[in-house]
Amino acid sequence: MPMIVLFTDFGSDGPYVGQMKAVLAQQAAPETPVIDLLHNAPRFNVRASAHLLAAYISAFPADSVLLGVVDPGVGDPQRKAVAINITGRWYVGPENGLFDVLAARAMAAQEKVTCWEITWRPENLSNSFHGRDLFAPVAARLARGEMPPGVQIDWPVSVAAANDLPEVIFIDHYGNAITGVCARNLSPTACLNIGEQIIMRENTFCKVTEGQVFCYKNANELMEIAINQGNAAHELGLSIGSRIGIHQ
Amino acid sequence: MPMIVLFTDFGSDGPYVGQMKAVLAQQAAPETPVIDLLHNAPRFNVRASAHLLAAYISAFPADSVLLGVVDPGVGDPQRKAVAINITGRWYVGPENGLFDVLAARAMAAQEKVTCWEITWRPENLSNSFHGRDLFAPVAARLARGEMPPGVQIDWPVSVAAANDLPEVIFIDHYGNAITGVCARNLSPTACLNIGEQIIMRENTFCKVTEGQVFCYKNANELMEIAINQGNAAHELGLSIGSRIGIHQ
Amino acid sequence: MPMIVLFTDFGSDGPYVGQMKAVLAQQAAPETPVIDLLHNAPRFNVRASAHLLAAYISAFPADSVLLGVVDPGVGDPQRKAVAINITGRWYVGPENGLFDVLAARAMAAQEKVTCWEITWRPENLSNSFHGRDLFAPVAARLARGEMPPGVQIDWPVSVAAANDLPEVIFIDHYGNAITGVCARNLSPTACLNIGEQIIMRENTFCKVTEGQVFCYKNANELMEIAINQGNAAHELGLSIGSRIGIHQ
Repeated sequence: MPMIVLFTDFGSDGPYVGQMKAVLAQQAAPETPVIDLLHNAPRFNVRASAHLLAAYISAFPADSVLLGVVDPGVGDPQRKAVAINITGRWYVGPENGLFDVLAARAMAAQEKVTCWEITWRPENLSNSFHGRDLFAPVAARLARGEMPPGVQIDWPVSVAAANDLPEVIFIDHYGNAITGVCARNLSPTACLNIGEQIIMRENTFCKVTEGQVFCYKNANELMEIAINQGNAAHELGLSIGSRIGIHQ
Repeated sequence: MPMIVLFTDFGSDGPYVGQMKAVLAQQAAPETPVIDLLHNAPRFNVRASAHLLAAYISAFPADSVLLGVVDPGVGDPQRKAVAINITGRWYVGPENGLFDVLAARAMAAQEKVTCWEITWRPENLSNSFHGRDLFAPVAARLARGEMPPGVQIDWPVSVAAANDLPEVIFIDHYGNAITGVCARNLSPTACLNIGEQIIMRENTFCKVTEGQVFCYKNANELMEIAINQGNAAHELGLSIGSRIGIHQ
Repeated sequence: MPMIVLFTDFGSDGPYVGQMKAVLAQQAAPETPVIDLLHNAPRFNVRASAHLLAAYISAFPADSVLLGVVDPGVGDPQRKAVAINITGRWYVGPENGLFDVLAARAMAAQEKVTCWEITWRPENLSNSFHGRDLFAPVAARLARGEMPPGVQIDWPVSVAAANDLPEVIFIDHYGNAITGVCARNLSPTACLNIGEQIIMRENTFCKVTEGQVFCYKNANELMEIAINQGNAAHELGLSIGSRIGIHQ
């Protein structure tokens, strides 16, 4: 039984996620788990969101269906609706770059990436809530093992999209600053710097004293800047988009 | 299989929703979906909440059971517990006006509205958490197709409750200001104004340039004030209760 | 069918809860309810969290499995992973004091408390996200009625851990200040004080006028300080850890 995983910028406490889940509850098989991965993906920032999604999705089963909506161009009729299969997992959403990092990395690894443009449209399609009206029904259908009406298309993803993003891409609840730098691309002794400030590297929180700034490979294998029992983003003045350096 | 839909002012991140869901998980049929529609309904503002609920509920199936608690008079023993059937859908909660907009509109459309006062009481009824102790068990029972002990009562809803509310009734995660004005009651060329400022109308976000203020019919058919890639509530100084004008 | 109840400081809107739920959805029986009790447990404050958990857990069924992670010492390899059975209910998490209040009270009441150190480790164990990698699989297993590999250990809980905590232990969405004082330990006429200020006691909100400060036994049987239709924490300058007095 596949699960449906939600990744949006809708906000977790507003009225949008529930409406989308009502569609999924009606149209997916009743026992399909629907999991909220993130509903505060960086707003209007598809690039940071794409790097976050690429890191987080590996925590989910290989046959998950990912429904992803982070869209600065809401309601653009020119924008295609796509269902992309990357290494066996389905990704559904607007074609706007959210899946590019994943796809470019899969292609670089010689894995299979295929893209369908979804031509199916619901009877009632609002101008502004395609997540509910279009993408949720498509995700439900894919989770049932059916292919919605569509045509396979070429999908020219830039090779450069596979590269790390040396920026802060998320600030979590603790104030930890997650970067778009994959730990596997660094030497084990490399650390990060913010301008002139070198951020020492440790394995985890309990290795540093309270109040100490450090960076570490987080549980999704991204380099993250934290303060033990403190708020790194606040203390260091970091926000989404802050540039990060790599100090070999 | 009906779904149970939750609409409260409990806050989505506090300890109240989970306690209510534990009751539903035990007392409803195991496969009943429980969907969070909203847990930050306008606090102490039943009127704005009633207009929001009236707009959002149509996104849910006709046989849903809506459990709604937005209550400035928590724990008032004089307040009746009601289960109201409006056009086939059940609404459960305190009798305090939250369902009046829906009921008045249904009555105006000659649809069937019946109201039961719930006389059943649980063995343990706290003074302040009727959502968990009283309304959740009633909603679970209705979702199982059973009627909890109660008596049918007259329910004198004011005809005026059907009217639009020309105010901001919700500010969403993006800063969009949702009004209590139904788009269907406006001419297609009418737009909104805030004091002297006329807000131009468009179909959706991609029709306006970045930073532009506009209003549009949102996906729940309410008029909404937004800024493309900006925060309208912040820029325009809007909050729940701000008066809105209609500019024909 | 037991339910799995989540109590963490992960934040309800970040990317951590979903990853943990994906593990539970795969490893627990498909129909097992997973309920979010709290994801903003007082950060780095295991003591306040332990008192909150002790109050809230009684709203959940006796055979629930509680997965609790509030951990200032994340990733400490010296810290044991434990599964503690207190009066028939399982508690899973790091051994750091989160379950001490519950255990000490159960022992004082001559109820059965047994503790297992979990020796099982997953193939892939991150340094910083034991909630997902270690505790979620253990909770899923216990919910299936299986015991993960472990050894029973003595668990020397201080008798004093059973005592009330006369402090604010949580501020809810309304600004109500929840204290670690159990109402059953007060005489019916006792009330609270904050420094010199005596806080009058009432049964519930509708007994006091709008804007009135009062305290009452909340629906989880803790003494709580509130203002009818107002924000008590803000008005009174209360935060987690603020000392509270008992005025007999």
